[in-house]
Amino acid sequence: MAARLWRLKPPRVLRCPVAAGLADQPSQLARLTRAQQRDGVRHIILNNPTKRNALSLSMLKCLRDDILHDIESKALRVIIISAEGPVFSAGHDLKELSSEQDMKHHTEVFETCAEVMTLLQKIPVPVIAQVNGLATAAGCQLVASCDIAVASEKSRFATPGVNIGLFCSTPAVAVGRALPRKVALEMLFTGEPISAHDALLHGLLSRVVPEDKLEEETMKIAHKICETSRSVVALGKATFYRQIALGLDDAYKMTSQVMVDNLILKDGQEGIDAFIQKRKPVWSHTVDRVCK
Amino acid sequence: MAARLWRLKPPRVLRCPVAAGLADQPSQLARLTRAQQRDGVRHIILNNPTKRNALSLSMLKCLRDDILHDIESKALRVIIISAEGPVFSAGHDLKELSSEQDMKHHTEVFETCAEVMTLLQKIPVPVIAQVNGLATAAGCQLVASCDIAVASEKSRFATPGVNIGLFCSTPAVAVGRALPRKVALEMLFTGEPISAHDALLHGLLSRVVPEDKLEEETMKIAHKICETSRSVVALGKATFYRQIALGLDDAYKMTSQVMVDNLILKDGQEGIDAFIQKRKPVWSHTVDRVCK
Amino acid sequence: MAARLWRLKPPRVLRCPVAAGLADQPSQLARLTRAQQRDGVRHIILNNPTKRNALSLSMLKCLRDDILHDIESKALRVIIISAEGPVFSAGHDLKELSSEQDMKHHTEVFETCAEVMTLLQKIPVPVIAQVNGLATAAGCQLVASCDIAVASEKSRFATPGVNIGLFCSTPAVAVGRALPRKVALEMLFTGEPISAHDALLHGLLSRVVPEDKLEEETMKIAHKICETSRSVVALGKATFYRQIALGLDDAYKMTSQVMVDNLILKDGQEGIDAFIQKRKPVWSHTVDRVCK
Repeated sequence: MAARLWRLKPPRVLRCPVAAGLADQPSQLARLTRAQQRDGVRHIILNNPTKRNALSLSMLKCLRDDILHDIESKALRVIIISAEGPVFSAGHDLKELSSEQDMKHHTEVFETCAEVMTLLQKIPVPVIAQVNGLATAAGCQLVASCDIAVASEKSRFATPGVNIGLFCSTPAVAVGRALPRKVALEMLFTGEPISAHDALLHGLLSRVVPEDKLEEETMKIAHKICETSRSVVALGKATFYRQIALGLDDAYKMTSQVMVDNLILKDGQEGIDAFIQKRKPVWSHTVDRVCK
Repeated sequence: MAARLWRLKPPRVLRCPVAAGLADQPSQLARLTRAQQRDGVRHIILNNPTKRNALSLSMLKCLRDDILHDIESKALRVIIISAEGPVFSAGHDLKELSSEQDMKHHTEVFETCAEVMTLLQKIPVPVIAQVNGLATAAGCQLVASCDIAVASEKSRFATPGVNIGLFCSTPAVAVGRALPRKVALEMLFTGEPISAHDALLHGLLSRVVPEDKLEEETMKIAHKICETSRSVVALGKATFYRQIALGLDDAYKMTSQVMVDNLILKDGQEGIDAFIQKRKPVWSHTVDRVCK
Repeated sequence: MAARLWRLKPPRVLRCPVAAGLADQPSQLARLTRAQQRDGVRHIILNNPTKRNALSLSMLKCLRDDILHDIESKALRVIIISAEGPVFSAGHDLKELSSEQDMKHHTEVFETCAEVMTLLQKIPVPVIAQVNGLATAAGCQLVASCDIAVASEKSRFATPGVNIGLFCSTPAVAVGRALPRKVALEMLFTGEPISAHDALLHGLLSRVVPEDKLEEETMKIAHKICETSRSVVALGKATFYRQIALGLDDAYKMTSQVMVDNLILKDGQEGIDAFIQKRKPVWSHTVDRVCK
């Protein structure tokens, strides 16, 4: 379906460099994700539906590279992460966590996963999860780690690691910060899925829509972000995650200074001037400052 | 509409001292807020509807002075902040943030705003936002900063600074602590408003009512607070904000001591004695302690 | 009703040792709680309905002892706390907080209460509150302090201490961490109850069910937990509460290591092996590790 977007004008297709570089069978691994960018919107599509889009080490590295590719480019304004097939992602590839692999390998899997999850907050552009199906374990963690999450009504979310003797302790970092504690713990202790409706009710999602509107509604959010200044959004995103970890007084001290700094950005003054002059702003998307 | 409350018995009208003292045109500035107090309830009304109740520096100073006026008086039990006109508040006055003003002025605006917002938590009486209309940017921050927030069904809430190149980083301090992260970030990145219903669902409001019940429902909460002891509420409010910033064990250590202190307040023993004796308590509203 | 569970096979009845040991009238005090364990599920039932299941010092000590009794036993997998009668619990026994008791006694009451509330998070098995009726003050705190909370539709929740001059500052520790700040403060400042529906909406509960399904739905959750490995659940529960108090990067550093440790638990490898071999896992419930 996402392919439809590129029909008229062929998008730039990003190749997953890790997969291309490290793979024994590059042609197969290169398809673990698909990444396409057009008009400021980068679509990263988990593309291993036969493996339920497992977040294997290769998939995680593809994802990381698709996220970081040319991340400072002014042409990139927002990232949407979606998935091919009925499962958004079923989490880690359990074969990589079996006793056939050693502790060093296990450590690499979890550290790479944590790196990707925290990366989503650290990059300068907003990341939207577009979910159409089941997201479990690290797959649920991926949804919970995006800035914004939109899902179709049929989507479901679970942290079922406990059923296979591997408690979802890393997913719990993201899930426990998105949902009320009691809901998160019921999910973690029972492994049972919650509906998209309940996920919205409890804060895991920001929006639930009918399946046939999922792409349209997600793109509305993306297009809205594309109308703004990249540098202002980057400043705002970084500031949000910094201040939320502080006490109230420190948060206000820091953000009050950021507001003053925002105003001397070229795009800060352009926006206010345009508003006062009742015209459309013309953004530079740079971090250039106005000389005062 | 709020005027109806005072029809039978004229309330005490507080003049905004800053406006009165500093204004070039005191008669005009004095109308930026209206403050009236009766039977323990102070109504502060943002009263500059033609400017969409912009939180200009003058408005912020009026608000601060209306809040702080005689704040230790036993006659004051609760503050309600409402607004004249269809817009609760549209946030900062952008003319004050344009390049015509220097960085020193910008800094004063944001520091005064942060001071007013944090003040709401620091004063000894509860503050209720009574919202009937649109609250945006610092106006939305004001709602999120009150202890309690009641709104009519038609009210809407947004942080649209990103549209004019000024990310709502200070509003995000309050909004990011009231709403789930994903909802807050969708609001901040897109600038799109959310409905009163969604604001309730996600924790920005404690209550949504039909427009014609807004005043009645808000006053019910205010009157309930007026039936309690001022000193007990003051102790409880201060303790709440202190403990919520602590870890669980420290929070219990601190509050357990507060409970013991609360019991030796004159009003603490009066309340329990009255309950045991099945009579109505007679509050002193003082911080006097029982001699033990 | 809970008695029905034991009809076919008599459960092991735990006697409240404190009550038995310390009581002047042991036969009466011993009935403050009833505790029964069967098939891994320990039911602790507040059993003083004529006193609205007040959390008196004796009740708190019974509760503590019922919780801690043989807590390391592999036969214990989950604890359900419910109550006899229409009131789940009305909170502290006010006679113990009157001026007839001295400050030392008051201190003991609050410290014991805080100890029981924090204990619920520290023990290795999940605790479910099963609420059918009114839970107020420390009774509401008890619900908010359990890992999971299920309630019947008729249940209601309040923190009405302010009405008797004793602000619910210790309940606010748990309630303020479970509910959005504005909802918590409206409850604390007015003392008014919220419905089970609103408690679910705002995160105090994880599930609301019709009264005639309450036991069945709670037992479903308990049975689901009984199918998992005790040691894995214990590791996950302890990790959840540790990581939630940390910043994001530290939380991931800690939990990534926990995941690796989880994998070398005997039950960690058994779970994954069973999954890959498409068979049912056989748990040891121990903290034994696989030799690598």
